[in-house]
Amino acid sequence: MSDILRQSQIFAAPLREPPQDAETVNHRLLVQAGFIDQLMAGVFSYLPLGLKVLTNINRIIREEMNALGALELLLPALHPKEPWATTGRWDDPGPAVMFRLKARGEKEYGLGWTHEEIVTPLIKKWTHSYRDLPFAVYQIQVKFRDEPRARSGLIRGREFLMKDLYSFHTNEADLLQYYQRVQEAYLRIFHRVGLAVLVAEASGGAFSKYSHEFQVLTESGEDHLRYCDHCGYAQNAEISSLNVGDPCPKCTSRLKEGRAIEVGNIFQLKARFTSAFDVTFVDADGSKKPVLMGCYGLGPSRVMGAIVECHNDQRGIVWPSSVAPCTVHVLEIFGRSASAVRTFSREVTERLRDAGHSVLFDDREHRSPGEKFADADLIGIPWRIVISEKHAASRTVGVKGRRETEERGIPLEALLSTVGAP
Amino acid sequence: MSDILRQSQIFAAPLREPPQDAETVNHRLLVQAGFIDQLMAGVFSYLPLGLKVLTNINRIIREEMNALGALELLLPALHPKEPWATTGRWDDPGPAVMFRLKARGEKEYGLGWTHEEIVTPLIKKWTHSYRDLPFAVYQIQVKFRDEPRARSGLIRGREFLMKDLYSFHTNEADLLQYYQRVQEAYLRIFHRVGLAVLVAEASGGAFSKYSHEFQVLTESGEDHLRYCDHCGYAQNAEISSLNVGDPCPKCTSRLKEGRAIEVGNIFQLKARFTSAFDVTFVDADGSKKPVLMGCYGLGPSRVMGAIVECHNDQRGIVWPSSVAPCTVHVLEIFGRSASAVRTFSREVTERLRDAGHSVLFDDREHRSPGEKFADADLIGIPWRIVISEKHAASRTVGVKGRRETEERGIPLEALLSTVGAP
Repeated sequence: MSDILRQSQIFAAPLREPPQDAETVNHRLLVQAGFIDQLMAGVFSYLPLGLKVLTNINRIIREEMNALGALELLLPALHPKEPWATTGRWDDPGPAVMFRLKARGEKEYGLGWTHEEIVTPLIKKWTHSYRDLPFAVYQIQVKFRDEPRARSGLIRGREFLMKDLYSFHTNEADLLQYYQRVQEAYLRIFHRVGLAVLVAEASGGAFSKYSHEFQVLTESGEDHLRYCDHCGYAQNAEISSLNVGDPCPKCTSRLKEGRAIEVGNIFQLKARFTSAFDVTFVDADGSKKPVLMGCYGLGPSRVMGAIVECHNDQRGIVWPSSVAPCTVHVLEIFGRSASAVRTFSREVTERLRDAGHSVLFDDREHRSPGEKFADADLIGIPWRIVISEKHAASRTVGVKGRRETEERGIPLEALLSTVGAP
Repeated sequence: MSDILRQSQIFAAPLREPPQDAETVNHRLLVQAGFIDQLMAGVFSYLPLGLKVLTNINRIIREEMNALGALELLLPALHPKEPWATTGRWDDPGPAVMFRLKARGEKEYGLGWTHEEIVTPLIKKWTHSYRDLPFAVYQIQVKFRDEPRARSGLIRGREFLMKDLYSFHTNEADLLQYYQRVQEAYLRIFHRVGLAVLVAEASGGAFSKYSHEFQVLTESGEDHLRYCDHCGYAQNAEISSLNVGDPCPKCTSRLKEGRAIEVGNIFQLKARFTSAFDVTFVDADGSKKPVLMGCYGLGPSRVMGAIVECHNDQRGIVWPSSVAPCTVHVLEIFGRSASAVRTFSREVTERLRDAGHSVLFDDREHRSPGEKFADADLIGIPWRIVISEKHAASRTVGVKGRRETEERGIPLEALLSTVGAP
């Protein structure tokens, strides 16, 4: 969205000190630069800059989900016990742990950590005939898990954002075809947000040989992979019988091992949940059959953390432009007379905004140029535009890409073509 | 958003039967028309049509909040006990009731029903000097209340959406001025979504004489007002010493009484929460003073319910165009040969979409014209566009506004000017 965010306002400037309790790069940089604030372990507030990044990630996800023909809906976070008892996951939640509560009338509730138990009975009300199938629905919604270890910033939260997509089919071939289309959509999403992912084979549960995880190789990852850096083949070490140095099953190069962050996963659930809720359809020949199901998860908040783990240097975050909170960062550098700088920098920010850019504007008066440059590097917006007395006098600006070392002086008229389209 | 939603897809067509347990008009119509689904008392899923309405309401709210200079952020729903103990609201939640839970390590948490206890310690980290003030932050976020009586559709939920705005000031005059600006913004929001509101005086708590509630007069309301239908003066009956028939304190007309739905409220909290968390600032003269605070609530999901309570007739919902899930509803009426109708209706829907309209497209094959007309009235989109064989042959369409009784045949070329800009 085209707008101007002034750093003299609250939350738009970094904190002076990094957080004391941050064990991971994403936690430290995102908190210090003013993108998020930790309320308690694994539970974060998104400040204005952080919410802008999250909104950009969500927009990319929505575009790719809508292109798959999936319909967006919004399911509740507060769940009754009954559907979870029906599938056996009230008492046996597997690796994830459900927050449970008792309320008025001693009824028991849970906080949703996934939504198969909610979406399956819901779609049952609307699914009768083969003519109603296939279809897919998704949501971007807050989820909760009582994680024993939530110490990695946005990578493992107790409250986090999730995009969950569910698809419903008449037969396995149709499910498999959609599963592959979702895999391609996920690869487009991760490419667009700047994450290089490996597609790793993981446990498929009782109903299919494998599920697939989308893994970002990084030292801070909690998952362990065996992978081939020649062809991209990968397996989660949890299920792998392969060893480091073994020949890749696909291309015979030697396998490596590495740590990775799982940013998405896709499952062929088949009839696991539709059987539990007796969701059937009448086929063209009049026979009654179980609806088959796939589910596909992708965590926008975890993606935000993973982007920071992969895109940073010793000076701070280096946002890919597709998800950066703003496209340009304008810095006012005051000399003896502030007024010429102020007039010219306002002209520049407004011109950028009118061209569709979202501008972070460092209009703070009581900061040195050095502090402003350091803060800009920490925040990590793609283009830094400096305006000092010299620039105001010559109607030029100083321009530097976040990864560049040298600032270039260019005429104001060349600015829009230099920084490109928003 | 410009798009085409096909009714042959799941969720885009009404259910055959109204819900059995609906006690209010908004509950009955929104469930039957396929906008929402009840998971349990006071907890609803938003289906694709319902999410579109909610998104439209949220967009209008965001525009008006941003115009106030407020910055959007996103706070957590899962809260630790400590800040609630600090303000005394862990044990004494007043009229609202907090869902509480114990988790790993026997720690106690609550689910947020408001966010003063979260936002106040947060802004404390960033607020030091008079130069940092005033500012305002808001969020649109899911909230939870363990309501004893959640039987009125979207009007009183146990899980619901809330826009909460918090403003922070150096002095009372500045707080009061912002409070009045927010009141004007709220009146613009309610006008834009099609709700006629009264601004009613209500209890101000310990720190100000009155707070103000934005009340929509309707039989199904849970609040009771004394009000003047001449000048618009109103008081909540809970605090009013006025009686029906008394002269209005403002204009001396006779007061009436009526039931109403509270869709928003604004409070001058002053130092109620900032004192509890010791949030101070250093003023220009070097003295340390408490930051003063206002809070301003507005419930998008409740607004959606209130709109349906006010905008319906015996045939269904009548959405104001500003929040309607789609701007136009195209109905295919098949005769002996479907193909001419299908070709022409696709041309019409694409032309509408390309002009920026969001189109609900009744492409269902096995429904009679009578069923399609009845469903269109139930769903309540502003413009109904009928395409039958006759229309396809003459390149005309049948157009009817939702409140109109007669359909008009017009040439395709006149369609865009008839239905207006999206």
